[in-house]
Amino acid sequence: MDLPAPQSYSPETFRPLTFHDAVPRFRDGSDTPRAYLERCLETIAALEPQVMAFASVNEAGAREAADASTARYRAGAPLSPIDGLPIGIKDLLETRDLPTEMGSAFYKGNRPGRDSALVQALRQAGAVIVGKTVTTELGMSHPGPTRHPFDLRRTPGGSSSGSGAVISARMLPAAIGTQVLGSVIRPASFNANWALKPTQGAINRGERQGFSQSTVGIHAGCAEDMWQIAVEIVKRVGGDPGAPGMYFTGEAPPPAFRPRRLAVLETEGWAVVEPAAAAAFERALDALRAQGVDVIRRGDHPLLEMLEQRVMGAMALATDVCAYESAWSVANMMAKNPDALSASLKARFELGCSVTLAQYRARLLQREEMRRAQAALAGEVDAFIGLPACGPAPLPGDTGGSTNRILHTTGNPIMNTASSGLGCPVVTVPRMAVGGMPLGLAVTAQPHQDERATAIARWIADAIPPIIA
Amino acid sequence: MDLPAPQSYSPETFRPLTFHDAVPRFRDGSDTPRAYLERCLETIAALEPQVMAFASVNEAGAREAADASTARYRAGAPLSPIDGLPIGIKDLLETRDLPTEMGSAFYKGNRPGRDSALVQALRQAGAVIVGKTVTTELGMSHPGPTRHPFDLRRTPGGSSSGSGAVISARMLPAAIGTQVLGSVIRPASFNANWALKPTQGAINRGERQGFSQSTVGIHAGCAEDMWQIAVEIVKRVGGDPGAPGMYFTGEAPPPAFRPRRLAVLETEGWAVVEPAAAAAFERALDALRAQGVDVIRRGDHPLLEMLEQRVMGAMALATDVCAYESAWSVANMMAKNPDALSASLKARFELGCSVTLAQYRARLLQREEMRRAQAALAGEVDAFIGLPACGPAPLPGDTGGSTNRILHTTGNPIMNTASSGLGCPVVTVPRMAVGGMPLGLAVTAQPHQDERATAIARWIADAIPPIIA
Repeated sequence: MDLPAPQSYSPETFRPLTFHDAVPRFRDGSDTPRAYLERCLETIAALEPQVMAFASVNEAGAREAADASTARYRAGAPLSPIDGLPIGIKDLLETRDLPTEMGSAFYKGNRPGRDSALVQALRQAGAVIVGKTVTTELGMSHPGPTRHPFDLRRTPGGSSSGSGAVISARMLPAAIGTQVLGSVIRPASFNANWALKPTQGAINRGERQGFSQSTVGIHAGCAEDMWQIAVEIVKRVGGDPGAPGMYFTGEAPPPAFRPRRLAVLETEGWAVVEPAAAAAFERALDALRAQGVDVIRRGDHPLLEMLEQRVMGAMALATDVCAYESAWSVANMMAKNPDALSASLKARFELGCSVTLAQYRARLLQREEMRRAQAALAGEVDAFIGLPACGPAPLPGDTGGSTNRILHTTGNPIMNTASSGLGCPVVTVPRMAVGGMPLGLAVTAQPHQDERATAIARWIADAIPPIIA
Repeated sequence: MDLPAPQSYSPETFRPLTFHDAVPRFRDGSDTPRAYLERCLETIAALEPQVMAFASVNEAGAREAADASTARYRAGAPLSPIDGLPIGIKDLLETRDLPTEMGSAFYKGNRPGRDSALVQALRQAGAVIVGKTVTTELGMSHPGPTRHPFDLRRTPGGSSSGSGAVISARMLPAAIGTQVLGSVIRPASFNANWALKPTQGAINRGERQGFSQSTVGIHAGCAEDMWQIAVEIVKRVGGDPGAPGMYFTGEAPPPAFRPRRLAVLETEGWAVVEPAAAAAFERALDALRAQGVDVIRRGDHPLLEMLEQRVMGAMALATDVCAYESAWSVANMMAKNPDALSASLKARFELGCSVTLAQYRARLLQREEMRRAQAALAGEVDAFIGLPACGPAPLPGDTGGSTNRILHTTGNPIMNTASSGLGCPVVTVPRMAVGGMPLGLAVTAQPHQDERATAIARWIADAIPPIIA
C-alpha cells in the first residue's frame, strides 16, 4: 500500500474509514469486527513506518476485543452501536494495557495500569482499543514524530497529532484527542477529520482535570461515528465532576438541521489566515447564502462586533491561564528531571511562575466577558461558522503563532483559542481543499449545544459542494 | 509523657500548640524552628504509639528543613510568616519524600514522588513537612487506626483522622486535611481544632480534582496559624483550575469582626444532635445574644426557612454525587485488586454504578437550589452558626449516619453535608466541652467570604465564655 502522493486530497474523492455503515454487515454476518480490525491493522502496518501516528499499538489486545465483539454480533447481542469500533486513544490519557508516555521523555515507560474514564466507557460499549496515538509533549507545543499522511513533509497538526493522522491515513475510523488551545480542531482540519470539541466539561476528562479550559474530543471519518462515540462515552461516565455532561435528545446522530442565520466568527486569527484559505472560506459562505442562509459578519450586528472584540487576545489569555494552572505540576518534573523537558515546556513553566494570582483572576474575568458576549447572541444566530486553522497543514519551518520563547511547529492554534476560551462546542466539517490539502469548516455553537452544532455541521456538509481551491 | 486521662478536656485549660507566637522568639534567637520541631518530635515519640495519627514521619527530612529555616531566621531572612512551621499532610495528598497510601491496602507502597500543589507552596514558604497523617480509606468511610488523644476508646473523627488528632495531641501546631462530606470540620470539632474548610476551589487541590464538592482544609491550634497557612498556600499556587482562589484583603489574620446578625443553620442533622450538645449550643447562642448579636432561626425568616428546607437531603445528595463521580476510578481498583478494597468502598462503588446521568443532573440541580437559597441571605445575615458535629467524638459502636451498606465509624457527617454541598467556607471554633470532650462551633459564610468567616469566628472565640456542659 502506497501513501497518497503529496497534494492529492480532494473532498470529492477522499473516503475515510467509517464504522456505522459496517454494522449492518456485522449483523448479517457478511463482515465482522475482527475482519474490520484486520483491515485497519494492515493499513497501519503499511503506513505507520512513514506516518508514525502511534506511540504504541496493542495488536493482541485489539484482536481479542474484536473477537469478543464478533461473537456478540453473532449472538445478536452487541453492547452498543459502537461495539467493534477500532479506536485510538491519545497518549495523554491512561489505558490499563499500554504505557502513557505523553510525548514526554519524562514519562518514558510510565505505566499507570488504569483506564481513563472514557477508555472504560469505550470498552464497556464494546469498542476496540487499538493503540495510543502520538501527542506533542504533554499536549503542549514540542512536537512528536508524526508526519502528515497526505504529505510527509508536513505536520499533521497537534497536539492530537496521531489522532488526526490515523483518520487521513485510513488507519482507523476514529480516535480520541484532547484540546486546551487548539489541539483537536486544528489537526482535524489538517487531516480531513470530522471532529467534536465538546462543551467544556461535557465529556469526562478522567484523571486529566488540571486545566480549566481543556476538553477531550472525538476525531472520526464521519459525523455519525463522531456523534455516536461521544454519546456512548457520556451515557456511561458522564462529564467532568460537577458538570452535567453532554446533552442529547436522542442517542442516534442528530439529523441535519438547516440554520436560518449563521454568524461568521473571525477571531483574532483572521489577520493571519492564508489568502487561499480565506478565498475558499468565502466560497463556502457564498454556497451557504445560495442555500438561503443569512450569513452575518461583525459589521452587521453590534453584539457580534462585541464578541469579536472580546475574543481578541484569546491566545494570550489561554497561554497565561494554562501556564499558571500547570506550573505546580511542571515544577515537580523540573525538580526531578529537568533534562527530560523541552526548552519550549521550560519556557511555559517560567511564564507560569511569572503570572500572579491577581493576573490569573483578571484572565478569568476576561474569559467570563468573552462567554457573556457569546451568550448574548444565543437568540440571534443558530451557530457560528469560521475557519479551524489559518490554512492547510504547514510545511516545516512554518512557525506561525510562535513567540520568542514558545515555538509552534504543528500549526498556529490562533483560530482555536477563542472557542477554547469560550468553552463552547465546535465541530469541524471536512469540505474544502486548498493546494491539494484538506481544510475544514468550524461550526461553533453555544455551550451545551453540542447536538445543535453537530446537526448544523451535517446540514452544511450536505448543502454545500466540495470546495477545491 | 502521659496521655491526658479520658474526659479531661476543658476549653478553659487546654492549650494546643501555636506557631505564630513563637516567631518573635525565632527572630530574637531565644528559640529556633529546629528546637520547636524537636519538641514536636518528642511529643510524637511519646504519644504516637497510642494515638497512631501518622501514616509516616520523615524525621530526617523535617530536621533538615527546620535547620534551613533556623539559618534563615538567623540571617534575618525568613521566607514567610510560616517559615519553620511543622505541619502534617493528610495521606491523600502527594509528597515527594513519603509514600501516599491513602489509607488503602490498594495503595500500599505507592510513591508518586511528587509534591501536591499545596505541599509545594508550603515548602516554598519554609514550612517543615513532618509526616503524612492518617486518613480513612480514600477519604471515605472505612476507618484508619488513629485513636482520640483525649480518650483512646473514641474515634478522632474522619476522614482527616490524623490531622485532627495531631492538634489535640499537641504533636503539631497544624495539619492539612481534606473534606468531601464532613472530613475536616467533624474531626476538627472532635479534637478542639481551629479549622477552615474553604470555599469550594479556593485552595488548590492539586492532583485530587475528582470530586465536585471536595476541598482541602487547614487544621490548627489557633485562628492565626490556620489563616496564615491558607494565605501562604493560595499566594503561591492559587485555587483550583478556573477558580479565583481564596480572597483576602490583607495577608495577616483578619481582626475579629463583630456580627450584627447571625442565622442558626440547623440542617437535617439537627434531628439527631445529642441533647447535651444541643444544650451547650443553646448556651453559646445565649452568650452571643448577651453580646448584642441578633440570632435568628428558621422560623424567624422565610428565606432562612427556605434554606433549611433546601439543605434537607444534603447527605443523600452528597452520597450520590460522590459515588457517581468516583465510580470510574474505583472501577480501576476493582478490576485490578478487589480484595484490597473495604466492603464499605465496594458498596459505594455499587451505588455509584447505579446512579444514572439523569439522576446525577438532578442532584446537581438540587445543589444549585441549595446554593441559590444561601445566596438569597447574603444581605440578611453576616454569617451562619451551627454545630460541626452531632456531639463529641463517639465511642466505638456509635455508627450514626450509617446506612445498611455504608458504615460510619468515625462519627456522623450529617452536620457537615449541607455546607459541603453549599461549597461555602466554614470555620470551627473550639469553645465548648460536652462530657469532658471537645465540641466546636461552626461559623459558615457565603462562598468567597473565607476571610469574613474567620474574622467572625475570632470574635466569637473572644466574646463568649468557655462552655462546659
